[in-house]
Formats: sequence, structure tokens, C-alpha cells
Amino acid sequence: MDKIKAIVYGVGAMGKIMTKLMIEKGVIIVGAIGHVSNVGRDLGEVAGLDYPLNVKISDDAEAVLSGQKADIAVVALFTEMDKMYHHLAMCLKHRLNVITTSEEAFYPWPTAPELTAKLDKLAKRHGVTITGSGFDDGLLVNMVSILSGASHHIESLTLREQFNADDYGPVLAEYLHVGESKEEFDHWFKTHPNEAGFTRPVLECQIADLGLNVKSVRQSFTPILAGSDLEARKLGRLVKQGLVSGMLEVMEIETDQGVRFRAEMIGKVYSPDEVDLSECYIEGTPNLHLVIDQLNIGITTCTQMVNRIPDVVNAAPGFITVEKLPKLKYRAYPLHFYLGQ
Amino acid sequence: MDKIKAIVYGVGAMGKIMTKLMIEKGVIIVGAIGHVSNVGRDLGEVAGLDYPLNVKISDDAEAVLSGQKADIAVVALFTEMDKMYHHLAMCLKHRLNVITTSEEAFYPWPTAPELTAKLDKLAKRHGVTITGSGFDDGLLVNMVSILSGASHHIESLTLREQFNADDYGPVLAEYLHVGESKEEFDHWFKTHPNEAGFTRPVLECQIADLGLNVKSVRQSFTPILAGSDLEARKLGRLVKQGLVSGMLEVMEIETDQGVRFRAEMIGKVYSPDEVDLSECYIEGTPNLHLVIDQLNIGITTCTQMVNRIPDVVNAAPGFITVEKLPKLKYRAYPLHFYLGQ
Repeated sequence: MDKIKAIVYGVGAMGKIMTKLMIEKGVIIVGAIGHVSNVGRDLGEVAGLDYPLNVKISDDAEAVLSGQKADIAVVALFTEMDKMYHHLAMCLKHRLNVITTSEEAFYPWPTAPELTAKLDKLAKRHGVTITGSGFDDGLLVNMVSILSGASHHIESLTLREQFNADDYGPVLAEYLHVGESKEEFDHWFKTHPNEAGFTRPVLECQIADLGLNVKSVRQSFTPILAGSDLEARKLGRLVKQGLVSGMLEVMEIETDQGVRFRAEMIGKVYSPDEVDLSECYIEGTPNLHLVIDQLNIGITTCTQMVNRIPDVVNAAPGFITVEKLPKLKYRAYPLHFYLGQ
Repeated sequence: MDKIKAIVYGVGAMGKIMTKLMIEKGVIIVGAIGHVSNVGRDLGEVAGLDYPLNVKISDDAEAVLSGQKADIAVVALFTEMDKMYHHLAMCLKHRLNVITTSEEAFYPWPTAPELTAKLDKLAKRHGVTITGSGFDDGLLVNMVSILSGASHHIESLTLREQFNADDYGPVLAEYLHVGESKEEFDHWFKTHPNEAGFTRPVLECQIADLGLNVKSVRQSFTPILAGSDLEARKLGRLVKQGLVSGMLEVMEIETDQGVRFRAEMIGKVYSPDEVDLSECYIEGTPNLHLVIDQLNIGITTCTQMVNRIPDVVNAAPGFITVEKLPKLKYRAYPLHFYLGQ
């Protein structure tokens, strides 16, 4: 079996971690597309490895994608499908499978149906697969489906997540409105009423995985204001007291089958005592409560993305969301050992 | 689609709960095999329903199994394969699919290879499936596999479980040596060195699900002595201070791939402040910790058994352990809606 060849598309906070994880799982990285500030530097150096990878970072995506024969592009750029489309389409046109951290791409059919259909068509035409993965994959949708397997009757299912906006780089911090005034935040959401957010794709995927149908969706985005000056060390900036440190997103979806879904997600710059959180409550017969503690959502975003790579390469062509893939499991062997399974 | 027809084989603590759950999920119960003390009584009455099911409990298994056309037998009798074989084989010979709570049957290949091979052959000859399910299914093996999907590297994986010996009827209490003296307990384990226990099948199934291989197995069974008189209300008996209230089972399995597995399981008659417990630790990159609290292991044994029924009916013939089945999920619809999927 040949090793898997990958192109790292986006060498930010997540791209750097995934580079190291992929190398340790026997993936050969044949190209890297990154920010202009890193152009010409070695990917290994930028990713903090203590050895060079002999892969120079370029900001010419077209040249990297056409110049290298690779199996998959690992794309970590933006949350929103409208910002992602161009990049994802370019990978597919070069016959590359794609896995991406884009939160909206995790289950984009309801919020970006046209762009998703175009990507699905492109992927099928070129015989490759595109999948959104990350934290939402195993530890949310897969895990919650399994928990629900112990339910006789479900009244409501609630997810609660909290992550540190300092862990994911400046693009995500901007998405969370870190450092804005409350007025700037409010103005944004008045002019963007149909924001997909992070949790709608999660709940829509969950609902699809359980074979249910969406009846209605309600969502809210609330700014969280810094109670004191907060140092975002990795972002290299200070969030002054009174400015936005992040946001609370609440998503409520009712289904035709009567099961109510709710997600509460906080992404913000932490004060020193705060930690990541992931839990699920099921109200029904019986009540169930699952907690994953000692968690780093950033790291486990990357570990899951990397463990998912063989499934994406193995999958049928098209835009394949994770509920259609095998359950995400540990990879004890180098990733190419799992090809053809 | 026709509704699923089931025979309840064993109308004890678990069989009664499963009867109610199956009825509520649209299963038709066409026969019931139970203890001589219940013979001639209506299954609905014995199961605590407030309506009769017009199914008389019989202790003539052969007559019930041959007299009714059913899709599946739901068998809740004993832990050990040598005690189960006769009952399971009889169901298979009557062309019934089988799902059982038997803990050893959850993954019986390593501890009962010959009996398992015979059942596998019988099932294939008669075109039916036999599967061990229960608490170990979704909330242990499936759940832990999903958690492992967030692991980059695993050093060790530890399960901790605790359940109340008062919840499962007299057969399980006897298996746990409830009410014996310490000397009786010690004598038993000297004369039964190869006891499968509850956790070896769980870990062996887990290891199979992750594509790993067993290198060595170490196990111990330690009696837990009642610190004060304990009332086992459902069992209708008192465990005197100093006698065995249950046991701690510790199972350690090393794999060829270097991942170490450990399970610690306590089954005992609770003192009033004790509660069920299920948690998993993964030591590695990263460390992970999952807790399911507010748990009733008895109820969730039954809910998972019932939710698993369509997968067993759908599966290929043979002795099919759960790691070969689809992930166990909530059934929002009556169970026969999931046939043919």
C-alpha cells in the first residue's frame, strides 16, 4: 500500500497541529498553502517540528494544487461556506479529496444548499469526496447518537460546549467578534440574520443521523463582554474590559417527530480559571447525561480530522457528511493501512 | 411492513422491563418462557403492565418455540455460555433470531470458542442471527470506540463500572456470590480459574472493534464484604454484615500494538448512598475522560437490547458480535420501521 499524500491548505493554528499529527501517522505532505507572511518558509519549521519537511509554503494555491499528485487536501481556512467555496472547488477540480474544519461545511445542505450542490456535483464529476469533520464529528454527532441508543423515548436533547477563542487563530477570533464593541457586534447580527453559526450544522447532522426531520429552527447569538482585561496569549492581543470576548450561540430545532434539540455553545477568550467543556443531556426515558472533561477542543478537532482521512479517501464520490461515514475510531496504524476498508 | 414478533425467553428482572419497552415500540409478543412459579400467568400482569397481553407464560420452551411464528427470541437467563448454550441452540433450531443479555455471549469467541462456533454454524444453517447486547453494547464498546476516535496515540484505556446487584434478579446475584461467606467465594474461584467474568468479553470486543490483537490477559475477582447489614429490597433478602455483597472484577489485557486495556467492574448490593457509575479514561495524546452519570445500568441494559433488535433481524446469518453491527442509535419509530435498512 502506498502512503497517503496530503496538501495542507491553511497553515494556521489547526493546520500546524494537523501537520505534526499527519507526519506521525505516516502521511507524506507534498504541498502547503499558507499566508503570505509564511511564504517560502519550510512547513516543518512553521509547524514547530524540530526537523524540516522540505515543503515550502506557498500562497499560490493553483500552483500547489496542480503541481503535486496528492490524495487529499486538508483545508483549515474559514467557517462560512461562501468564503470556503472557491478554495474547496479548486481542490476538487484538481481531483483531490477534501477534508475541512469549516464549521458550516460539516452539514451545509440546509444553510448553503446551492454551493453544497455545486461542490457535490464537482466532486462526483472528478471522482473524489469532500467532507467536513473536526470536533463536531466523533465527540459530538457520533457520540450523541450512541448515547441516544440507550434512550427508549427522547423529549429533548441538549448539547453544551465551551472553547477558548485563543486556541484557533485570528480568523476564528474575528468570526467570534473578539475585541469588537457591543455596538459593532449588534450591528453585525442585524445585517446577517441567517448566520449558520457553529451549532446548526451539528444539530442538523445529528437529526439526520437519527433519521428525524427538521420542523423549525430558532437561533440567537449573544455577545459575551470581558469582565476584566483578558490576555489572549496565542493571538498576541489584549481584550479590554467591556469589549466582546466571544459569543454565546443558542440553537433550538424542533423535529416532526417531537424530539427537541438544543445547543448552547460558548466561544470566548478565557479568563485563567476557565476550561473547555462538552456535555450532552437527554431528557426522556431514561434521562441521560454524558460529560467529556479534561478536554482540549482544539487538539481533539485536529486528532479527529486526521483520524478521519482514510474514511474520506475510501468514501464514494460527492459531498459526504459524516453521518454517512463509518464511526470514527482510533488509528493504531499509519493511516494508509486503513485504505480500501 | 409487518410488525416484529418476539418471544420473551426469561421473564426475570430484565425480561419484565424489556416486555414493556418492546410493547411500546410496536413489537408483538407471541410467547413467553418463564420460571415455573409464573406458569399460566399473563405476561402483561407479571411484567407489571396495567393491561393483559394475552400471552400465558410457559416453562415448556420447546412448545413455545415450535408453536409460534416469531422473528426473534429475547433471551435473558444466565451469564455463562455453558449454561446458555442449550437455550440459544433451541431458539436457532426453530429459525429464530436471538438477542441475549448473557454477558459472556457479548463476545464469546475467546472464552467459549467451541460452543460459539457451534452456535455460529447452527445460525448459518437456519439463516438467522444471534447477538449478545445489553449495557456493554452502545454505552461501552460503541461509546469507547468513538471516544478513541479523538486519540492520536493511546497508552492505556481504562473502563470503570459499578452496578447494583439488587437490580437484576436472583441469578445475577448468585453469579456475584451475594450472601456467601468469604471462604465460599474463595473456594469458588479456586475451582473456576477460567471464569470469563463480565469485562473480558467487553474488552475483547473493544479490542476487535479497534482492529487490535490480544497479547495477554490477567484477571482477578475480589469479594466485597458488607460493612453493615444491607437490604436488597428487590431481591427480598438481607445481606448480613461480613458476608459477600458482591465482587470487584479487574481485567487487564495487553495488545500486540502496545495499547493496554483495563476494566474495573463492581457489582454489589448497594448501601443507600451508592449509585451506578460508568466512565472511561484514555491515557495518551491527548488524555481523555468520559463520564455517564445519572445512570441506571439495568434500565439502559434493556433499552439498548430493545433498540438493537432491528439490527439483529437485519444482519447476516451467524453469531454476529456488536462491533460488526451498525452503531446503536435511538429508535424514534416502531422497531419494524427499521427493518431492511
